[in-house]
Amino acid sequence: MKVLLTYDMEPKYLAQLKEILKDGELVLKKGKEITDEDVLTANVILGNPPKGRLHENADLGLVALNSAGSTDYCEKGVLPDSTVLTNATGAYGIIISEWMSGMILNIMNRFPEYRENQKEGLWKRNMAERQHIYGAKVLILGTGNIGSEFAKRMKAFGAVTIGVRRSSTKSVEFFDEIHLNSELDELIPEADIIAMCLPGTDKTAHIMSRERIFSMKKTAIIINVGRGTAIDTDALNDALREGAIAACGLDVTDPEPLPQDHPLWKAPNAFITPHISGGMNSPVSRGVIAEVAVNNVKAYLGQGEYRNVVDRETGYKISE
Amino acid sequence: MKVLLTYDMEPKYLAQLKEILKDGELVLKKGKEITDEDVLTANVILGNPPKGRLHENADLGLVALNSAGSTDYCEKGVLPDSTVLTNATGAYGIIISEWMSGMILNIMNRFPEYRENQKEGLWKRNMAERQHIYGAKVLILGTGNIGSEFAKRMKAFGAVTIGVRRSSTKSVEFFDEIHLNSELDELIPEADIIAMCLPGTDKTAHIMSRERIFSMKKTAIIINVGRGTAIDTDALNDALREGAIAACGLDVTDPEPLPQDHPLWKAPNAFITPHISGGMNSPVSRGVIAEVAVNNVKAYLGQGEYRNVVDRETGYKISE
Repeated sequence: MKVLLTYDMEPKYLAQLKEILKDGELVLKKGKEITDEDVLTANVILGNPPKGRLHENADLGLVALNSAGSTDYCEKGVLPDSTVLTNATGAYGIIISEWMSGMILNIMNRFPEYRENQKEGLWKRNMAERQHIYGAKVLILGTGNIGSEFAKRMKAFGAVTIGVRRSSTKSVEFFDEIHLNSELDELIPEADIIAMCLPGTDKTAHIMSRERIFSMKKTAIIINVGRGTAIDTDALNDALREGAIAACGLDVTDPEPLPQDHPLWKAPNAFITPHISGGMNSPVSRGVIAEVAVNNVKAYLGQGEYRNVVDRETGYKISE
Repeated sequence: MKVLLTYDMEPKYLAQLKEILKDGELVLKKGKEITDEDVLTANVILGNPPKGRLHENADLGLVALNSAGSTDYCEKGVLPDSTVLTNATGAYGIIISEWMSGMILNIMNRFPEYRENQKEGLWKRNMAERQHIYGAKVLILGTGNIGSEFAKRMKAFGAVTIGVRRSSTKSVEFFDEIHLNSELDELIPEADIIAMCLPGTDKTAHIMSRERIFSMKKTAIIINVGRGTAIDTDALNDALREGAIAACGLDVTDPEPLPQDHPLWKAPNAFITPHISGGMNSPVSRGVIAEVAVNNVKAYLGQGEYRNVVDRETGYKISE
């Protein structure tokens, strides 16, 4: 048995992994250190390996990604049919929802404006009407781990939380209402905040179309931590420049990385970070990723159940 | 009966006020429009009037401030002994706690750094270890309305909330622990976040002394929305420049306004806003202030109980 580990695992979890593996081989390699041979001979890969030749490894029993997104590995032909694919759902909800809440409050409290004043030593108040999360209608596209953690925080701030999902309107904790994607046209014009945490699939591409963006309230804020392709970027840029919406906060863009000369960088009230909301430079995310990895290596060895198995047709985690 | 109203009250509440007053006189004046005669002849003042001659008005039954802080009006000789003083506690907890949560997340998510990169069109990740509210020990100085609303939000983020107050360690909702001011020396070195929401009194001046600031964790963040005088500003400036603490977020300073040439403006990781966290440019705060004002005019007329009566010895609201 051979396990390829492609990221830094905290000593505590690494020790657990070694104990589980006993005489099995553990290869620790990252990025460009990873060879074709490593990929072709591993029984288990922990992390997001180069995907070019994975399909040739018929003995690849498990790929346990360290990302929440799994689209790349769900494409037909990337993995042998028999390989179990798991993602790191749960690792990112906590930390990404901190980015989401922070970005909204950053905009509402005018921190970027005051930061500019600070550079000049200017004690200068902007007394224009302020917006608050308290009492806001927050439309959340995606009610999985990230959407739920975000909704929990929004509830504590006194918002009304409205979740939108693909199927089933059964109630979800921390959501005041749950609706289907098919109701979006009616929901968008009512929202004060639109928060997008959708995976990149055929069905989510441009789900925020030009028409929907321009149907938003003029005072509304849209944030995106899912995939940049879920928003029509040209339309978003136009809407900001025309004052059709108040602001956007994006951790994901389309294209990504956003080219240096892209107009969105300079659109008024566009706030952009370079896909860092869910990075592994966080003890919280690393802990959950390692826990899932250790659990799933055990499951591979017949001890217990897999966690976070991905349905490769939909790209979503199979409900447990 | 004559009522002087010194701020803009939303039409809905103004109508209620007029109905209550019946034949009484209602004078609406702001700032420099307010004359000595207005102050000397009013039975009730709603808002924060000029304080120079209030003590001469023996018929002044009620001053209902629109601020949470009341220090200026508690000074001996400012008000006749018989005047009831009420503050706007409750108006600001919701909105100030949004500033507090937002400032912490602004710092932890490195939004100011990414904003600078955005200006250059730079997609550049800072992969240094991130901090999170999740799992953080949050020490909250002041467990009144602002501290409680903040603690509620911090709990939703998964923090441990430790409240510190003047007297009584009886439990308070949303606080995991309640301690006394006398325990601060032991509590400060353990905290990841120190959040200050104290009124300006003799006992809170420099409560964060040089010694206490330098006893903080090197990774800790301190925020202040109470009074600037609660922190030894020179020591804070030194601590930031020496890297003895990670960052500060201040909405109040000492002195205030902070002079343009003050070194704190340029101290590393100092984030300063010009006392705007609790302004009246918010529908949430205006609503609560008006509700309390209307209630207290009724109480003055013998209908019901006063809300938010201030103990002029301590500057704190008397518990209801």
